Amino acid sequence: MELIFLGTSSGSPTKSRNVSGLALRKSGARPWILVDCGEGTQHRLLHTPLSLSRLQTICITHVHGDHCYGLPGLLASAAMAGRRAPLTIIGPAALQGWLEATQEATHLTLGYPLHFIDVAALAGRQDWVVAEGFNITVLPLSHRVPSFGYEFVETGQPCKLDVDRLKADNIEPGPLWGRLQRGERVTLADGRVIDGRDYLLALWAPRKVIICGDNDNPALIAERAGSVDVLVHEATFTQAIANKLGTGPQHSSAMSIAQCAAEASVPNLILTHFSPRYKDGGAGLTIKDIEQEAGHYYGGILFLARDLDVFHLDRSGGLSRR
Amino acid sequence: MELIFLGTSSGSPTKSRNVSGLALRKSGARPWILVDCGEGTQHRLLHTPLSLSRLQTICITHVHGDHCYGLPGLLASAAMAGRRAPLTIIGPAALQGWLEATQEATHLTLGYPLHFIDVAALAGRQDWVVAEGFNITVLPLSHRVPSFGYEFVETGQPCKLDVDRLKADNIEPGPLWGRLQRGERVTLADGRVIDGRDYLLALWAPRKVIICGDNDNPALIAERAGSVDVLVHEATFTQAIANKLGTGPQHSSAMSIAQCAAEASVPNLILTHFSPRYKDGGAGLTIKDIEQEAGHYYGGILFLARDLDVFHLDRSGGLSRR
Repeated sequence: MELIFLGTSSGSPTKSRNVSGLALRKSGARPWILVDCGEGTQHRLLHTPLSLSRLQTICITHVHGDHCYGLPGLLASAAMAGRRAPLTIIGPAALQGWLEATQEATHLTLGYPLHFIDVAALAGRQDWVVAEGFNITVLPLSHRVPSFGYEFVETGQPCKLDVDRLKADNIEPGPLWGRLQRGERVTLADGRVIDGRDYLLALWAPRKVIICGDNDNPALIAERAGSVDVLVHEATFTQAIANKLGTGPQHSSAMSIAQCAAEASVPNLILTHFSPRYKDGGAGLTIKDIEQEAGHYYGGILFLARDLDVFHLDRSGGLSRR
Repeated sequence: MELIFLGTSSGSPTKSRNVSGLALRKSGARPWILVDCGEGTQHRLLHTPLSLSRLQTICITHVHGDHCYGLPGLLASAAMAGRRAPLTIIGPAALQGWLEATQEATHLTLGYPLHFIDVAALAGRQDWVVAEGFNITVLPLSHRVPSFGYEFVETGQPCKLDVDRLKADNIEPGPLWGRLQRGERVTLADGRVIDGRDYLLALWAPRKVIICGDNDNPALIAERAGSVDVLVHEATFTQAIANKLGTGPQHSSAMSIAQCAAEASVPNLILTHFSPRYKDGGAGLTIKDIEQEAGHYYGGILFLARDLDVFHLDRSGGLSRR
């Protein structure tokens, strides 16, 4: 699996960091999913192998502009590039009306259907949205406006036959095994009818990634985070700046999310959505300050995302930055 | 005067060209005017000396997304940067409702007032909008949706006393002349009351620039273009591609705008808004094709704009690319 960061700044873009956008796909696969779509997301995509014609689902975490103002332009460019396939958007219901108002005011005609799903109706329920290669579920978060996290659970891994179970059920090796491996229903010589799908084992456990929107209460994801391979979460400030700003912004500090990730035994943590006051280097506040604070509380594999970073999650759950 | 191009691509951005945006200011002055605001305009501004706190007026030529989808993010970033001064937007009335819908859907609170002026109410009339350093008037154009050009006429040039006229009116040199030069009303020894403003001559003639939105009928601006120093106009295609696409897109070709500029004796012509099918170099269609076609029909000073180009218009109307 691959995570491609399209924007890692909070609120406003900087020279080196765009506002929020994150692509997810099976490594090298053409279909992909976009989480958040700040202004300029389509510009960043020009520097990736991702194609607007193969974008299958957009998940928006909340209504703030730095997470959604890139939607109209991205949808328009997909149309201009000739897209005809339907596109699913999961997001706050208010954005559906806003997109309709945008299309009307700016005479924007898309040549493909939009299928809008209200994220609030999914939040905290067992329902999932089926995308190509992933099942998507939703976690409610805490922010100045309703905000959500998305959990992506891998589907469609290749399978092998469960030889032990075949032997235990007295199904002898032979041409039949080939049909069972293809998932077919088969009638045995003794009259039993068996389903190949009952004898298949996925080659690896489904990988799980949680990508969160803005959130000042990491405890809300602690339970689910315990079973994921990767958690992507905001760390807008260090705790010192968070204390100075008070509770108004409703963001997480590096300390608060790092403590939560440590307690939940998250194996891989990627932090993003940094306040523009943190520079990439030089004097004053830097991203390094956020990294050092997080590293103080969290001992797992930690990354601070940069724009156009590509992270590869291997089949055994190992995460590396390419 | 300076023109700073923030985007020179039509429809969608490319790796090297953003969608439409163009800044205008007195050379080195802090207040500035923005004409069109495609998605990513605020990102381009990060690479210029222009400050969102000193943006005084935004002029939008028409409602198509590549000319206005950058507005919400730019307005939001100005607010986050602490802007308190009112901001004037001149544009199609539909955009006022769209901005209101955007603010409501995305919980966007600006800390400064927006003053919206319907461009259609100004078009083709003698009315002008007063900005710092410029008077702005509007020209109706022809496109798939109502589209407009903006004429900027310089104001506020420094003045000198009209000595010939002072002498002709028997006003002798003395301390009085200093007061007249400051534009004061003065009572002469002989009882006459005169107004200094009647005896002031601007150091140079007001410079004029016309910046047009999308337009398939350059003849509409021929009359006004005859008196400008600089005309900025779209040249989306060469004529060969325009012929191939038919009249649907309602854009100008390099040939059609170059012919018009030649007939109107426009001294300086800057072309922009190039279809992404024209690359900056290499094989296939290139910007050079548009330049060569325009140069064939127009013998004045011709430039094909690139993103972040800065053009300087000197006091005598000479245009140079910095």
